[in-house]
Amino acid sequence: MGTHADSSRGPVDADPVRPRIVILGGGFGGLSAAKGLRRVPADVTVIDRHNYHLFQPLLYQVATAGLSPADIAYPIRSIVGGQANTRVLLGRVTGIDREGRCVLLGDRRIPYDYLVVATGARHAYFGHDEWEAVAPGLKKIEDATDIRRRILLAFERAETTEDETQRRRLLTFVIVGGGPTGVELAGAIAELAHRALAADFRSINPREARIILVEAGARVLPAMKPTLSDNALRALEKLGVEVRLGTMVTGCDAEGVDIRHGEGDDRIASECIIWAAGVAASPAAKWLEVPADRVGRVAVEADLSLPGRPEIFVIGDTALVLGREGKPLPGIAPAAKQQGAYVAKLLRNRIAGKPTAPFRYRHRGDLATIGRKSAVVDFGWIRLKGTLAWLLWSAAHIYFLIGFRNRLFVALSWLWAYATFHRGARLITGSTS
Amino acid sequence: MGTHADSSRGPVDADPVRPRIVILGGGFGGLSAAKGLRRVPADVTVIDRHNYHLFQPLLYQVATAGLSPADIAYPIRSIVGGQANTRVLLGRVTGIDREGRCVLLGDRRIPYDYLVVATGARHAYFGHDEWEAVAPGLKKIEDATDIRRRILLAFERAETTEDETQRRRLLTFVIVGGGPTGVELAGAIAELAHRALAADFRSINPREARIILVEAGARVLPAMKPTLSDNALRALEKLGVEVRLGTMVTGCDAEGVDIRHGEGDDRIASECIIWAAGVAASPAAKWLEVPADRVGRVAVEADLSLPGRPEIFVIGDTALVLGREGKPLPGIAPAAKQQGAYVAKLLRNRIAGKPTAPFRYRHRGDLATIGRKSAVVDFGWIRLKGTLAWLLWSAAHIYFLIGFRNRLFVALSWLWAYATFHRGARLITGSTS
Repeated sequence: MGTHADSSRGPVDADPVRPRIVILGGGFGGLSAAKGLRRVPADVTVIDRHNYHLFQPLLYQVATAGLSPADIAYPIRSIVGGQANTRVLLGRVTGIDREGRCVLLGDRRIPYDYLVVATGARHAYFGHDEWEAVAPGLKKIEDATDIRRRILLAFERAETTEDETQRRRLLTFVIVGGGPTGVELAGAIAELAHRALAADFRSINPREARIILVEAGARVLPAMKPTLSDNALRALEKLGVEVRLGTMVTGCDAEGVDIRHGEGDDRIASECIIWAAGVAASPAAKWLEVPADRVGRVAVEADLSLPGRPEIFVIGDTALVLGREGKPLPGIAPAAKQQGAYVAKLLRNRIAGKPTAPFRYRHRGDLATIGRKSAVVDFGWIRLKGTLAWLLWSAAHIYFLIGFRNRLFVALSWLWAYATFHRGARLITGSTS
Repeated sequence: MGTHADSSRGPVDADPVRPRIVILGGGFGGLSAAKGLRRVPADVTVIDRHNYHLFQPLLYQVATAGLSPADIAYPIRSIVGGQANTRVLLGRVTGIDREGRCVLLGDRRIPYDYLVVATGARHAYFGHDEWEAVAPGLKKIEDATDIRRRILLAFERAETTEDETQRRRLLTFVIVGGGPTGVELAGAIAELAHRALAADFRSINPREARIILVEAGARVLPAMKPTLSDNALRALEKLGVEVRLGTMVTGCDAEGVDIRHGEGDDRIASECIIWAAGVAASPAAKWLEVPADRVGRVAVEADLSLPGRPEIFVIGDTALVLGREGKPLPGIAPAAKQQGAYVAKLLRNRIAGKPTAPFRYRHRGDLATIGRKSAVVDFGWIRLKGTLAWLLWSAAHIYFLIGFRNRLFVALSWLWAYATFHRGARLITGSTS
């Protein structure tokens, strides 16, 4: 391990017996690992291509003009700023040199003794990457402001067009995928169209907007219990969302989606299609030169390390971790956080020369919100729907947000939106072409 | 005036005796005109290329991570949504057909009986448009998030570079122009660097950042009284800003600015240059086929109408309006608002067959803020500096913001920043190239 003396080690005080732990990704998994290493005698480096941690569960509210990006993002430097053993690097990973034990950021080499890969997932189009241009997904802040622009511009264009067919197409919003993101987006767009924008237009009636949720499976929220799916479906229909179950998307272009339901083919004319159907892991498998599963995830050992590489750990949406029934763990924040905390504990133990029991996931429950004051919640020991579930959902999300300012501002934005039906961030920014 | 019967008139109920008033621009001038026409028996159309009104006086706070774009922008539709005689069009003006009395939005023609041009100003590089790429100005939301990205990225890059010369260059910020925008930006960047970011970095000390304000004239805030300039200069120096008076910028590139002070030429190495030196009016003079002054403004009659065209009015930063001493009115929000209100009154009178006295500007006072709790205020009958001036400045800006939510959120952001020294919107978004 001669890399200890590497001169490119960087500014953290060099100590030949302090191991260097590099964490790739400042999401839920990476930050949870970094925080767990707070008092460990090691030099910790967190690398992310953004300077902020993003609270992805609320990203759909940025896309639907309810929140500002800054409300749900927090500088990574501030989160770990109090940890004397931790530094933060802004950079884009281009590869991993497993033999030389270095992370590559373009020309730069960041040496490690232990590596934690927590680079998350992005949306996937199942071999149809050409759909991305017309049906953007929702993973980054830029995705959210882009979708917000598309939604608001659709109403603006509908107001000015004199072509009735185009107007109907502009006022049709298609959300592909009935998981939590799709359900929450569909509910939020329905409320935006039917309530928040209703008074603002002269030529069109925003209430006439159609919001169509297309799901290939037999129910929405397929990862949750069937009763929750039923509740969510009813809540969506109450908001005026058309839910098309058992319906596959077979094509996407700038003017609509082709769909297949059973034997029949059909088409929905729409200029605003949002992709919430699939995710694929980040290119970690490629960097690590290991095989990946169908959605790009890397299989790991029971201690979340890479097979044959006890110094490399893969966690969160990038890892394929099997739960008790042999099913992969869901790609949700609590799973990533538990894995990050576990790897921190394991490294703490290993540096102290102690063993650690295998990782075990505890599923705390499922939550999804549908519109302004409805949600479904399943904590195993209790199941709720409606307003009470929505209050619980709101409290949980505010609690898990990082930073007092963000909690306060999100809480106030929701109170304000709840009281007035208005949305605070209805800005069309960026390119309008 | 056969255009009355034009079929492209649009969705506002057609009434052959109701005049059509088209307002170009949803800034301070245009909105003030629109609001003044609230109860006038006319069909009013507000056209803007953005869907929001932007409170430009606080844009520098978005550029320095203190506020979010949505805090200082408000949908134009919501502002005039309660006016039954007013509609809003999102569109980019491409020309004006004075003979046909139509505004051109690409292929679309919007007929008018009265036209109010309030399209504002943009930054000007005095014949050096190539400087814009390296020295962006601050007029739009996208400018502000771009400058925010540049400032925050400079610190991130300084943290990772191992080249001492580059690090110094990255930590040098040059603001060109000592008017209110330049002074406010310089103060805010100094506070961001010396206070808000101070604890966040390991390799660099953000306190070592140099903030240099370059002004060609003999004092900062040249449009205000000399005592205010002196106070502002002292407040800037207290914050650690280097102020270079009597200094011209003779060149700008990606690695610095060339300057001339008296006979001597010099160069400041910097990768973050911000242009606050000059504005030029929008292309209204070109659309109207009339001559413009050196900064693109259109000369108007005493009633703000275009000479020989009593149905066309030009107001705000687009107009050259002379004050009592024969000097052009300043390009500030109160001047634009008073002109908008005046044109609304004039049109109200004209439709009722009554005359209107010439426009007369009332200067209410000058304000500029320097950093966290200092400002200079001159209302003529009272002059203030320091904390009390800052409180007045804050109260005035919150009062003039549109929308209760925006007022609340800006007030809370300021309270929070004041109490903690932190900034809430430290996000690097958009392209990082």
